[in-house]
Amino acid sequence: MKFSLKLENACRVMIQLAGAYDGRRVSRVEDLAQREHVSPSFMLQILNELRRAGMVVSKRGKFGGYMLARPPAEITLREIVVAIDGSTLETDVRRDGESAARLAAAWREIAASIDELLAATSVADLAARGQEGGQMFYI
Amino acid sequence: MKFSLKLENACRVMIQLAGAYDGRRVSRVEDLAQREHVSPSFMLQILNELRRAGMVVSKRGKFGGYMLARPPAEITLREIVVAIDGSTLETDVRRDGESAARLAAAWREIAASIDELLAATSVADLAARGQEGGQMFYI
Repeated sequence: MKFSLKLENACRVMIQLAGAYDGRRVSRVEDLAQREHVSPSFMLQILNELRRAGMVVSKRGKFGGYMLARPPAEITLREIVVAIDGSTLETDVRRDGESAARLAAAWREIAASIDELLAATSVADLAARGQEGGQMFYI
Repeated sequence: MKFSLKLENACRVMIQLAGAYDGRRVSRVEDLAQREHVSPSFMLQILNELRRAGMVVSKRGKFGGYMLARPPAEITLREIVVAIDGSTLETDVRRDGESAARLAAAWREIAASIDELLAATSVADLAARGQEGGQMFYI
């Protein structure tokens, strides 16, 4: 299994917006893109998907940009995965063959456990990891 | 995220071999393929990968075939995923951009949790689900 590059970039921009979050200030797409080394157009595409999913809000105009729609502790990694990739784990199993039903049941259980795992991680948790993780750049 | 079709078929054949397991009887590739509606050549390819990973053993000749190398309770879903897909969750994150380190840390934690989850599910567990799952065919 792997997470998509798009999901990675969505998490990166959510971490950036968590760091800037004060409930009113917006961040410019160009700045967000530059900080995470992503093209502005790809960043804009991702921000639009996150906006449609209700996780970020935008402000138009010269001083426009994006900010989190809710405090970072109230947005989960599960929401981001579902918004960007559609589901956390696809549980489609071919319906034919003797083991179809039992395998589908097993996949559903595993998907539910992964859902729980991702729902227990907030954007604030992701952003907080910077404290320890950031050290590696200063050794 | 999704599991590959190859992984699905690997689990299907392991469930079949779990049902037949008595420590000496082998199952024919053609029978296994037919029961799970998989082509014999694809089934053989998967069985060879499982054999190289030490999960099944083969017997050559006219009455040849495959059987589990160990009792089904001693083979985990994690082993199957690693043998077929290489890892449970790929945790590669681009190394550039401000949030690289914290995202890599988060991905590693999630991968470790998914590993635990898959290691806690044995082939015997998968096979046992047939009891409940099988009902849906008889309603």
